[in-house]
Amino acid sequence: MNKITEKKLTQPGNTTIKDEFWGRYIRLVQDVVIPYQYEALHDRVPEAELSHAIANFEIAAGRRAGEFKGWVFQDSDVAKWLEAVGYSLKLKPDPGLERQADEVIDLIGEAQQEDGYLNTYFTVKEPGKRWTNLQDCHELYCAGHFIEAAVAYYEATGKDKLLNIMRRVVDHIDSVFGPEEGRLKGYDGHQEIELALVKLHLLTGNEKYLKLSSFFIDQRGQEPNFLHQEWESRGRITHWSGKTDHIDLAYFQAHLPVREQSVAVGHSVRAVYMYTAMADLALLNGDRALRDACVRLWNNMTEKQMYISGGIGSTHHGEAFTFDYDLPNDTIYAETCASIGLIFFAQRMLRLAPEARYADIMERALYNNVLGSMAQDGKHYFYVNPLEVWPQACSCNPGKHHVKPERQGWFGCACCPPNVARLLTSLNQYIYTVHGDTLYTNLYIGNESNFTLGGTEVAITLESRFPWEGKVSMKVNPEQSGDFGIALRIPSWSDGEEIKVNGEVVSFSESLEQGYVVIRREWKADDVIELNFPMEAHRVYAHPNLRADAGKTAIQRGPLVYCLEGADNGDLLSSISISKTGGFMETFDGGLLGGAVVVKTAGCRVDERSWNDGLYSRTKAAEMPVEVTAIPYYLWGNRGSGEMKVWIPEAERQSLPR
Amino acid sequence: MNKITEKKLTQPGNTTIKDEFWGRYIRLVQDVVIPYQYEALHDRVPEAELSHAIANFEIAAGRRAGEFKGWVFQDSDVAKWLEAVGYSLKLKPDPGLERQADEVIDLIGEAQQEDGYLNTYFTVKEPGKRWTNLQDCHELYCAGHFIEAAVAYYEATGKDKLLNIMRRVVDHIDSVFGPEEGRLKGYDGHQEIELALVKLHLLTGNEKYLKLSSFFIDQRGQEPNFLHQEWESRGRITHWSGKTDHIDLAYFQAHLPVREQSVAVGHSVRAVYMYTAMADLALLNGDRALRDACVRLWNNMTEKQMYISGGIGSTHHGEAFTFDYDLPNDTIYAETCASIGLIFFAQRMLRLAPEARYADIMERALYNNVLGSMAQDGKHYFYVNPLEVWPQACSCNPGKHHVKPERQGWFGCACCPPNVARLLTSLNQYIYTVHGDTLYTNLYIGNESNFTLGGTEVAITLESRFPWEGKVSMKVNPEQSGDFGIALRIPSWSDGEEIKVNGEVVSFSESLEQGYVVIRREWKADDVIELNFPMEAHRVYAHPNLRADAGKTAIQRGPLVYCLEGADNGDLLSSISISKTGGFMETFDGGLLGGAVVVKTAGCRVDERSWNDGLYSRTKAAEMPVEVTAIPYYLWGNRGSGEMKVWIPEAERQSLPR
Repeated sequence: MNKITEKKLTQPGNTTIKDEFWGRYIRLVQDVVIPYQYEALHDRVPEAELSHAIANFEIAAGRRAGEFKGWVFQDSDVAKWLEAVGYSLKLKPDPGLERQADEVIDLIGEAQQEDGYLNTYFTVKEPGKRWTNLQDCHELYCAGHFIEAAVAYYEATGKDKLLNIMRRVVDHIDSVFGPEEGRLKGYDGHQEIELALVKLHLLTGNEKYLKLSSFFIDQRGQEPNFLHQEWESRGRITHWSGKTDHIDLAYFQAHLPVREQSVAVGHSVRAVYMYTAMADLALLNGDRALRDACVRLWNNMTEKQMYISGGIGSTHHGEAFTFDYDLPNDTIYAETCASIGLIFFAQRMLRLAPEARYADIMERALYNNVLGSMAQDGKHYFYVNPLEVWPQACSCNPGKHHVKPERQGWFGCACCPPNVARLLTSLNQYIYTVHGDTLYTNLYIGNESNFTLGGTEVAITLESRFPWEGKVSMKVNPEQSGDFGIALRIPSWSDGEEIKVNGEVVSFSESLEQGYVVIRREWKADDVIELNFPMEAHRVYAHPNLRADAGKTAIQRGPLVYCLEGADNGDLLSSISISKTGGFMETFDGGLLGGAVVVKTAGCRVDERSWNDGLYSRTKAAEMPVEVTAIPYYLWGNRGSGEMKVWIPEAERQSLPR
Repeated sequence: MNKITEKKLTQPGNTTIKDEFWGRYIRLVQDVVIPYQYEALHDRVPEAELSHAIANFEIAAGRRAGEFKGWVFQDSDVAKWLEAVGYSLKLKPDPGLERQADEVIDLIGEAQQEDGYLNTYFTVKEPGKRWTNLQDCHELYCAGHFIEAAVAYYEATGKDKLLNIMRRVVDHIDSVFGPEEGRLKGYDGHQEIELALVKLHLLTGNEKYLKLSSFFIDQRGQEPNFLHQEWESRGRITHWSGKTDHIDLAYFQAHLPVREQSVAVGHSVRAVYMYTAMADLALLNGDRALRDACVRLWNNMTEKQMYISGGIGSTHHGEAFTFDYDLPNDTIYAETCASIGLIFFAQRMLRLAPEARYADIMERALYNNVLGSMAQDGKHYFYVNPLEVWPQACSCNPGKHHVKPERQGWFGCACCPPNVARLLTSLNQYIYTVHGDTLYTNLYIGNESNFTLGGTEVAITLESRFPWEGKVSMKVNPEQSGDFGIALRIPSWSDGEEIKVNGEVVSFSESLEQGYVVIRREWKADDVIELNFPMEAHRVYAHPNLRADAGKTAIQRGPLVYCLEGADNGDLLSSISISKTGGFMETFDGGLLGGAVVVKTAGCRVDERSWNDGLYSRTKAAEMPVEVTAIPYYLWGNRGSGEMKVWIPEAERQSLPR
C-alpha cells in the first residue's frame, strides 16, 4: 500500500481531546454506546427493536439459514459501528472490543461474494436484482459506510482485512459503473460512497478511488437523468411504495448537475453527505466550479434554511428542506444525522478556506442539535430535534407524530445513534485545520496536539472550560523557535473578547482575517496564548423573513442555545413572555443533569385563572410577573414529558397583575 | 301520503329572505352555481375536472355503455344538486330548471334496480359487492343525500317521483339492516342517512323511517363493533389503500356507543352529520341520554375545538379533529362542509332548547367559514379555510399542501360547492325557531315570514343591514291581537345593545333568557321592534390554552371576523403587530369586492431594511409605525395570491423608528 503524500492529507497532525465536557460524552460512547450497539446489532437487547443486522450477515455468509430482515440499508448499521470502534480504539486500546470487531470483520468477509459484491439484502433476498434500483436500495450507500469503517479501523489498528475486503468491493463497483461503454452511468439514491471513496483515496493514494468518486458526483443530475430512466425501466416501481406516478429528483439532489445547484433541496442527510464529497473533490481536484457550488449551497443552507440549533430539514415529509426562511419550530424535522452531515461539510469547507463562519456553524450544530440528540444514559436518542414541543400534540395531532417529547430507545432504523457515536469518537479531527504554516483553531475543546508548522514540530496544549466559561489557555511549544501562524477563531456569539500572548494584549484590528485572529510571529518554547470570550447570556433574534420566530427572541450563552421547559416554568409555555429589557441571572447548577449554567430572567405569564370560560372573549386574560428559567437546549426532555420551546415572545416589563 | 302532525314538524312557519347581503349570494347560487353545477355534472365544463356523475347514472340506467368513473360516492353530487334545485324552486319558480331536474329524476328512476337498490358504483362496477364495505363505500351516505333531495323537491314542486324512488330505496335498506335475525347490524362509514331519514319521517309521518334512523344511531359503536368485524371479514382490505393493519374507529365516530361520547373526534363532517341526527332523534324520541350526549359534544366542539371562524377540524390527516385547544392556524383543515354540518347541528340544538349560544355559533360559521369558502364568481371554492396563509409554504412545504392561497375550480370531488348551494338556498330555515308560543329570532337576516303564534297568524317583517350596520327593525303583525312571545337573540359579540318596542326601551334584566330578550305581551297589528346592536370593530382574545393564538388578538365587527392581507399591508405579515391601545377606524368601501367595511388601526412593522444579513443576530431589527388595514375574513384570497392572517400580535404603541 502506497500512502498518499503528506501534502494531500487534509487531516494533519495529531490531536487528543482532554476536555472535561466532551470527555464525558466520548467516554459515554466508549463505555455505553458502542457496547450497547454491539448487543443491539446482535439482537440481544430486550428493550430495543430487533436490528437483524448481524443475523443478515450470518445468513449471507452461509453460517445459518433464514430470511433477510430489516431495512434494505440495514448493513450500514454494522458499518457505522465498526467505524466508531475504529475511532475509539485509536483513542484507547481495548483488546476485547478489537476482538469483537475482528470477528464481525471475519463475518463480513464470509458474506462477500466471489466477484467482490457485498450487500446482504441482494445476496439473501433478491439475488438477481443487484444494481437495478439505485434510487431506493442503498447498495453504494452501504458500501460507502463500510469503506469509512475500513479506513478508520486500519488507521486505528493497522489491520487491513476490512480494507482489503472493501478494496475488492470497490473494484467490483468500478467494473459496474463508469463512463465506459456498457457500464451504468448511475449513482446512488443516497449519497455517501462519494465521500467514502475520497477517504479511501487519501489513505491509499490510489487515484482510481478519486476518479470513481468524481464520476458519481459529476454524473449526478446529468441528462438523460439516470434515476428517471432507471425508474422508467423498472416500470415506475419503487422499493417502498410500489408503483408511483412521479419521481422527485430534487429529493435525491439529482434534479440538476451538482455544479448548477445553488439551493439546498430534498432529503437533508443526502444533501449534506453530497456537499461534503463535493467540497472534498473541489479541494483535491482544484475544481473551482465545484467549490463555487459548495459555497452557494453552504450559503443558502446556513443563511436561509438552518435552525438556530444547527438543525436542517424543515419537514418530515421526505425528511427534507422546504424553502428559504421556512423554519417552523414545531413541525420541524432537523434530523440528528443531518446536523452531523452539516458538521462534515463544515469541516471540508474549512479545509477549502479558513473562514470562521464555517466553524461557527460546526460549533452551533455540535453543541445544540447533535449534543441534544443523545440522552445522558447514551441509550436514548432524538432523531427529530424540535425547537418547540407540546407533548399532547405529538401524540394527538398527526402532523406532529414524528416529533417526540422524550428520547426514544434504539430503533430498527438506528441511523442516528451510531452516527453520533462515530462523530464523537472522531471529534479530535474537527478542532483544527492547517493552511500553509498556520494552525487554525476552530473549536475550543481542550486537547493536546502535535503539528508540523513552519518546518518545526509544535506541541499544542489547549485548556478550556467551554461551554461554561469563556477562558481558554493555549500553550504553543515548538521544538525549535520558528515562524508560523496560530489563528484563533472569534466565535460569532462573542462580544468583547480579549486575547493575550505571554500576557500582552493582541490588537484585533491588525490581525483579524475571515473571523480568525491570526498571530504570525516567531514562537518559542512555552509561549502561552490566553483567550477570554465573555460567556454571557444574551438575546438572539431571527431574520425578519423567518416568520416562525417573529416577535420572539432566543437566549444563547456561548455556543449554547437555551430553552424553556415545563419542568422549570410550568407547562403552557405559550403564556410566557420575557421582558424586553430584563437582565439575565446566570448560575451553575451542579445538580442539573451533569451540571449546567441555568439562566433566569424576568417575564410575565398569563394568569389562566383570570379567564372566564369559553374559547374566545372580548376580555383579555390578566398577566402576572414571573421569573423565567432557561436551561441549555441540549438538556431538554430529560426530566419527563413536558413542554419545551426555544423562541420566546418579548414583552414590555410587566407591572403588577390586575 | 299522510302528512305528519304540525306538532312534530320542527320547521314551522314560512320565511322568505329579503336581504340585500344574503340576497346577492342566494341569487349567485341560483343564477350561477346551480346551472354551472348542472353542466359540471354532465361533464360539459371545460375548465372543471370531469364529474362522471350523470354518465355513471346513464350507464347504470342502460342508456349507454361504459365504465363507472369518479369516487365511490360520486352519486351524491347529483343528489346535492337536486336538493339545492328543490330549495331554489321553492324560492323562485323556474320551469327550465324544473324540467332539467325532472329529466335527471327520470334517469335516477331508470338506474334503480328491481329490488329498489340505487347506487351506480355497485350497479356498474361491483355488482356482487353491495353492502360488503359499509366502512368506505358510502352506499347509505348517497341514499341519504337522495332522500334529502327527494324531500326538498317534493316540498318545492309537489312532485313525488323522486320521493317514491327513495321510499323504495329505503324499503330495500330496511330489509337489509335491522335488529332482526339475518339482517346487518351495521351503519354507514359516513353518517348522513340518519338525518335524512328523519326528514323523510317528518314529511311522511311514517314511523318506519324514524325507527331505521334510530337503529343506525343506536347501533353505532356498539360491541361487537360492526365496522371492525366487517373489516376483518373483508380480510382487512379497505377500498382506498388495500390491506391495512389498523382500523381507526374514532375516525368514523364508531369507537363508542353514541350516548357515551363526550369529545368530538375523527372526521369532522361525519361527526357533525351524526350529531345533527342525534339531536333530531333526541327531540323526536324525547331521548334524554341522546340529548345529553349532544350537549356534551356541542360543548366540547365549540368550547375547545373550534376556530374563531366557526371552522372545525384541526388537521388534514383524516380531515379531522385532533384534541382540545389544538387549533393551529396554518396547518388547519376547517373544511367548508364541516362548518355547514355545524350549522345543521346548531339548528337542531336550537329546536331542542332555545339557547342563543347555539345561534351564536351558527352565525359565526355562516358569516365567516362558510361565506368565505365561495368566490365572488360562484365558481371557485375553498375546501380548506385557513386562518393564516403564506402562499409559498402552500406549494413548498408538504405539511401545508392542502392549504390553498386562492379558491380552486370545481373538483372531481366537489363536496363543498353543492353543500354551500343547498345551505344558501335553504337559509330561510335557519332564521327562526318556535318554542311553544314564542318565536325565537336567531339570525338577523332580512325576511318576511308567517307563523302561527298564540293561536293567531302573525306576519313578521324583519329589515336589517347586517353585517354592516347593527340596526334591525322587526314588524310584528298579528291577524288578531294576541299573547305570544317574540325572542330576540343578543349576539355574543354585542356590547351595549338597545331594544325598543313601539319606541319604548325594553329592560333587559327582566327579560333575558338564555341569551334571548324574550318579549311576552299582547301583540297588536303593526307593532314594531327596533334593535340596535352596536356594530363596532373590537378585539377578541383566545383562551390561554389555545397556544396558537397566545399573545395575539383578532379583530371582529358584528358577526364578521377580520383578517390582514398582503394586498393591503404588504406581505411578510408576521412583521406586523397592532397597538394594544389603538382605536379602530371603520369605513365602508363600496369598491371592495361588492362593498365591505374596512377597519384600520395603528400598528408597527419590522423594517426589513434595518436587518443586516444573516439568519440570526444579537441585534434586533428596527420597527416603524404603520397603519394596519383589516378586511372581513370572508373576502380574503380574492385579490391574487398573497399572505393572510387573522390572529395578530399586540404590542405597545410604537414610538418613532430608531
